[in-house]
Amino acid sequence: MRDERRYQRAVERLTKIAEEIYEQLDQGQIPKMVIPLRTKSNIRFDLKKGVWKYGRATGARTAKKMRGAQMLLRTMYMLDFIQEMIKENKSSTLREMYYISEGWEKAKFSAQDESNMLAEDLEIVTSCMREDFKLRPEEDGARVMGNVTIIETDRKGKKKKINCRDDVGDSGYSIPYNVEKEKLSFKELDADFAIAIETGGMFDRLVENGFDESARCVLIHLKGQPARSTRRFMKRLSEEMGLQVVTFTDGDPWSFRIHASIAYGAIKTAHISEYLATPAAEFVGITATDILNYELPTDKLTDRDVQALKAELTDPRFKDHFWKTEIETMLEMNKKAEQQALAKYGLEYVTSTYLPEKLTEMGIIT
Amino acid sequence: MRDERRYQRAVERLTKIAEEIYEQLDQGQIPKMVIPLRTKSNIRFDLKKGVWKYGRATGARTAKKMRGAQMLLRTMYMLDFIQEMIKENKSSTLREMYYISEGWEKAKFSAQDESNMLAEDLEIVTSCMREDFKLRPEEDGARVMGNVTIIETDRKGKKKKINCRDDVGDSGYSIPYNVEKEKLSFKELDADFAIAIETGGMFDRLVENGFDESARCVLIHLKGQPARSTRRFMKRLSEEMGLQVVTFTDGDPWSFRIHASIAYGAIKTAHISEYLATPAAEFVGITATDILNYELPTDKLTDRDVQALKAELTDPRFKDHFWKTEIETMLEMNKKAEQQALAKYGLEYVTSTYLPEKLTEMGIIT
Repeated sequence: MRDERRYQRAVERLTKIAEEIYEQLDQGQIPKMVIPLRTKSNIRFDLKKGVWKYGRATGARTAKKMRGAQMLLRTMYMLDFIQEMIKENKSSTLREMYYISEGWEKAKFSAQDESNMLAEDLEIVTSCMREDFKLRPEEDGARVMGNVTIIETDRKGKKKKINCRDDVGDSGYSIPYNVEKEKLSFKELDADFAIAIETGGMFDRLVENGFDESARCVLIHLKGQPARSTRRFMKRLSEEMGLQVVTFTDGDPWSFRIHASIAYGAIKTAHISEYLATPAAEFVGITATDILNYELPTDKLTDRDVQALKAELTDPRFKDHFWKTEIETMLEMNKKAEQQALAKYGLEYVTSTYLPEKLTEMGIIT
Repeated sequence: MRDERRYQRAVERLTKIAEEIYEQLDQGQIPKMVIPLRTKSNIRFDLKKGVWKYGRATGARTAKKMRGAQMLLRTMYMLDFIQEMIKENKSSTLREMYYISEGWEKAKFSAQDESNMLAEDLEIVTSCMREDFKLRPEEDGARVMGNVTIIETDRKGKKKKINCRDDVGDSGYSIPYNVEKEKLSFKELDADFAIAIETGGMFDRLVENGFDESARCVLIHLKGQPARSTRRFMKRLSEEMGLQVVTFTDGDPWSFRIHASIAYGAIKTAHISEYLATPAAEFVGITATDILNYELPTDKLTDRDVQALKAELTDPRFKDHFWKTEIETMLEMNKKAEQQALAKYGLEYVTSTYLPEKLTEMGIIT
């Protein structure tokens, strides 16, 4: 039924952690666990792969101190819980795991931040992903509309073939929280590119205007900063199906970061950038130049916006000429705009004029 | 293709507003528009129907004052825009309409609050719903999993038959923003009740545990305070299909309000409570009593929680014995709990023990 190899590998690697601790104790040593340092100074931009990654600096979590000993104890409980889930074919939200620890006595977490952090540590040490541990976030997957056919293996192990245009309602196909190969595979694709859209309003606009058909593209709703499953879905579309991905967001510093996290990875998930990032993704807009060229309705930048833009000027992900110019232009005019501001020219404008113009300029459509 | 009668009726009623203004001008009167007062004092709880409604107090918006004249002008532009959309078979988000007004010169809105408010005014005056005007919010519809078959008329007018368990992935069926009869109808139903769930984590838990099959129910994800389309979907399931709806939320004052808005309507949408509210909906938990009986992990009430609970004690929606006791118990113990806190007893507990016990107690299952 399911492809269990990924889970098997996760169990093996988790078992190895427990064995190492056991051996240290057996040899009369005070046990410790070595993990990469998760400080900002240990994150570097991998120019070759074009994504964020952790550097080589490591730190040891040792049982010499009370706090370190408690973390090792928690690690052992968590290893056990994950193995149990894999055995039972269950999964759990990060929130549920936090509550599960109520039964772990001295190893009980005092806040969910702690249990989330430990789950990330285990990802780093094992080079597996949280999904391999059957742990998932609260966040919802996004929606997809377009002529792509996927095979989803459902909770009962049954394979369902779903065309994300013909077999779903106008709300589209909902991306599940796990989009790894054993859960989801791509069967057929008849599209020239994918467009990842920040807001639900704009996603529904492109659906209503039939842009997926007229421009032969797959529409993906990001829901703001996209969930891991959404980024992984795009990465796989890009890599396995060779589909060009473009991002279409609001024109402000936070939306620029949405694009950066899709294309280059985010600091928080630097240890799995290679799984999540789509370095080939391009930004279609809204740019600062668009605000000027299309005379869009704007809002003034807030102090926080200005700070964020200034921080982006020193961020290696924004160091090329395009981003430097756009960020400086935005700072200069002191204005931002939303993607829905294109409605100023009517409901058709975005699909009849703006996107065709911009996508032609970028060479995505001819 | 589409059942256009609802839209026709909306156009007729909107035209009537314009005609009345025109007649007043024609007779040399200063034009005005009469609308129910939207103050808290003019909202009353309709005991017979069990929902919130506006009272009989009205106010006049007259062109005597600059601001009133501007609002009447905006009303005319908006009437025109809505008629245009209905003619073109388009729809628009409330945000888009705000931007559309950029082209309305003196009638341009200065904030989206103003355009949203006017859309609500038109709902009240015409007794139509925003959906009849082709206006929709940004908010996403929720997800559904269970053995109910719906017919959705898609954007091209094609009727699609979708079973919300067999024809969708594990993420379920996404409720579209319009669930009126011309868009969505119920074809078949094989379930004993529907359970409306506050958090995505708990929805996915019940899906994974197969509760829709083992308990013969339809699972509906509320996503916090539910969107209008979600409330309307439940209302129709309850009324047209005779399905009992129960709500399953966190145990805190804000979640109690989620239940109240489902069962009795919300103040903001008091003018359409009869369309949105499901007075037959019952609350399964988490109650204050559950926190005690099941010894759930808790958090302390914040000052805002305490204020909200105290306000609920004077809210007519919470005036029966059950709610009075639960609210007072919660205030007394000064604690709240999340629905996922049930994970303290393992991932199966909610479906093997908690829900069966509570639903049996309520007489929903036997």
